[in-house]
Amino acid sequence: MKIPKSPFYPKNFPEMPKIKGIKMAVAKAGIRSSDKNDILIMEFTQDTSVAGVFTTSYAASSNIEHCRKILHFGKARVLIVNSGNANVANGSAGYKAVEEIVNLCTDLFQCKGEEVYFSSTGVIGKPLPLDKMKIAIERAAKNLSVNLWEDAAISIMTTDTYHKMVTRKTEIDGVEVTINGICKGSGMIAPNMATMLSYVVTDANISARLLQQMLDEYVPISFNSITVEGDTSTSDTLLIFATGCADNEQVDSFDDPKFSNFKSILKEMLIEMAHLIVKDGEGASKFITITVKGTSSVLSAKQLALSVANSPLVKTAIAGGDANWGRIVMALGKAEIKFDKNKIAIKIGNVQIVENGELSIKYAEHLVTEHMKGSNIEIEVDLSDGQSKATVWTCDLTHGFITINSKYLT
Amino acid sequence: MKIPKSPFYPKNFPEMPKIKGIKMAVAKAGIRSSDKNDILIMEFTQDTSVAGVFTTSYAASSNIEHCRKILHFGKARVLIVNSGNANVANGSAGYKAVEEIVNLCTDLFQCKGEEVYFSSTGVIGKPLPLDKMKIAIERAAKNLSVNLWEDAAISIMTTDTYHKMVTRKTEIDGVEVTINGICKGSGMIAPNMATMLSYVVTDANISARLLQQMLDEYVPISFNSITVEGDTSTSDTLLIFATGCADNEQVDSFDDPKFSNFKSILKEMLIEMAHLIVKDGEGASKFITITVKGTSSVLSAKQLALSVANSPLVKTAIAGGDANWGRIVMALGKAEIKFDKNKIAIKIGNVQIVENGELSIKYAEHLVTEHMKGSNIEIEVDLSDGQSKATVWTCDLTHGFITINSKYLT
Repeated sequence: MKIPKSPFYPKNFPEMPKIKGIKMAVAKAGIRSSDKNDILIMEFTQDTSVAGVFTTSYAASSNIEHCRKILHFGKARVLIVNSGNANVANGSAGYKAVEEIVNLCTDLFQCKGEEVYFSSTGVIGKPLPLDKMKIAIERAAKNLSVNLWEDAAISIMTTDTYHKMVTRKTEIDGVEVTINGICKGSGMIAPNMATMLSYVVTDANISARLLQQMLDEYVPISFNSITVEGDTSTSDTLLIFATGCADNEQVDSFDDPKFSNFKSILKEMLIEMAHLIVKDGEGASKFITITVKGTSSVLSAKQLALSVANSPLVKTAIAGGDANWGRIVMALGKAEIKFDKNKIAIKIGNVQIVENGELSIKYAEHLVTEHMKGSNIEIEVDLSDGQSKATVWTCDLTHGFITINSKYLT
Repeated sequence: MKIPKSPFYPKNFPEMPKIKGIKMAVAKAGIRSSDKNDILIMEFTQDTSVAGVFTTSYAASSNIEHCRKILHFGKARVLIVNSGNANVANGSAGYKAVEEIVNLCTDLFQCKGEEVYFSSTGVIGKPLPLDKMKIAIERAAKNLSVNLWEDAAISIMTTDTYHKMVTRKTEIDGVEVTINGICKGSGMIAPNMATMLSYVVTDANISARLLQQMLDEYVPISFNSITVEGDTSTSDTLLIFATGCADNEQVDSFDDPKFSNFKSILKEMLIEMAHLIVKDGEGASKFITITVKGTSSVLSAKQLALSVANSPLVKTAIAGGDANWGRIVMALGKAEIKFDKNKIAIKIGNVQIVENGELSIKYAEHLVTEHMKGSNIEIEVDLSDGQSKATVWTCDLTHGFITINSKYLT
């Protein structure tokens, strides 16, 4: 089946700069098909710090279990990613596969098992073709390059219609540092710690502890604030690596003023990467921003916003260009967060539709109709019950989603 | 837009018998369109007992607020239902509409406001056309009939493709009693106390307290165990009325042995009515039964089963005839109920697919492929972690759902 390109297919992809302290290779193991690279290797310099967040799924892959187990060591030398097969629900063969790939890497790269990260993405319930993968990894490991970011981003794709890359430069205490990020994801997107596969690499010198602290701070408002269809992947992974080659003095404190630029840049990147995934959501024709404000806590605001973002009836209405605000009221009502329905206010495209729980007398329907025809839909809900707010992002639910997902295995 | 008939359109509708103690009328108020009856009146004899369950939505209609407020009186004389408009999110006009219709009924039927039940179903956020409705109710109230069950079932439909009626006869202590039920619902079905609109009437003499006890017992395993798309209606209502005209001695105890037939018949009816709604789910082509067993509590089993039932990826796979059991594993994993993934067992159509968390060596794929072509799909999950189980019912997610819901208002 040919998946049509997302209407948000980027006009330009960013030029990805080199990052000091990392080498890469991609390879074709023929895991699911033979016409694309499906193996990515990243080799990091000694003393590279690492932090990460993973899916909260109780059916997580053996890979996730391995990564979670080694994360507290805080050091990474190797990352292996394969696409085409998620290594989920493979029983003991799944654990064995992780062990064998990790052992192969400790030999090839002369490092410890706790420094080898391994992600798999693709179909669930099929054993990994280990022999093919090992041959591909061995061959590729002999041929590492300093800049292969675009190939890397392409090699991890599954149902994505475009590869996803983000890059920024900033400085820490006068030293220029670079941050590159790649990610993949299109379906099974309702991250609940991270989404699908995302890797961020910087040459900055930052402790693993601080890297983790930043992820814990920024993932809830980036990757954990997006949803495509409300299904949470068994493979969600976000890893960040800091090679330290930029030679800034190591940063270890979240509140270090020298570090404030880096923090805001990283936050911005994570949000941008999360948006790239939603915009490539399966069958997506519209990118939807939903803000709920006026709640007593950020968590309540987020739960309400996600209830709207995951409502199939809201999403199909938007696909059809209908400003069906009644469905927004319905989706708020089912979110299991108590509120006063007679205080609901709703704006779409910054036009007031609902005030005090009913249709606003000021409602200018033609303005909303015009907004609904566009590709970027903005919904704002105010519940007038506090000072907190949260924003989440999603896409619409279209015939494209049904077509893609009713034929995935065939 | 023309909605195609459900493939489960009943070959035969039941012949609905009279129920002693109730008269009915239907009328055309022209609420949303002028080509169908959109008002239903049921008048009950003096001393009719009533019990009910309602949506848990925090954006429930003013009608629900009224019904909830009067329920503890336990007596009903009148039920008014209108289709075409849900009277939700209408602010003070919504409350006023309920008050005016109730006042009209207390005049017309010489009863108290606390004996008048009023349900509305249809679009959200438009004021009820009160004048039209009052004229239609006044006219129809002069022309009540003893048996109009089919017209009644048709008058409450919105996006339903068929009307839904169930009838049974049983006996209490040697006295024959009849139970009739009608319901409507097709979209916005993820009931969380009851679903859309369902009305059950019996001539048995049963106290309101016992009626309520039966609903509290049986609704969780019938209406609250179905889902179409996971969206919870603002109007969910199930009311049961017992006119007492069958002249059995009044029953008031759930454990009265004379009452055991009635209880099991009522339970069966509620489940059958719930199934009729799922089978008429928007765009449904398959009826799916999901059982999760081997859990430590019924609630856990139900939460896991509903996570599978509400997964867009599971539902689209089934629409495509794909036995994509990996997505079932994913949906279990995201349910926020802890389990051991290495113990998961899954059967589809009674064929073992997964054992101990991986593909069973006994898996006979052709048998499952054959089962997936049918209209009735059966999924059973065993987590081997306890003795509890729960069954829920849903339908698949098809292009039909998208077509219906992206064009609802237009």
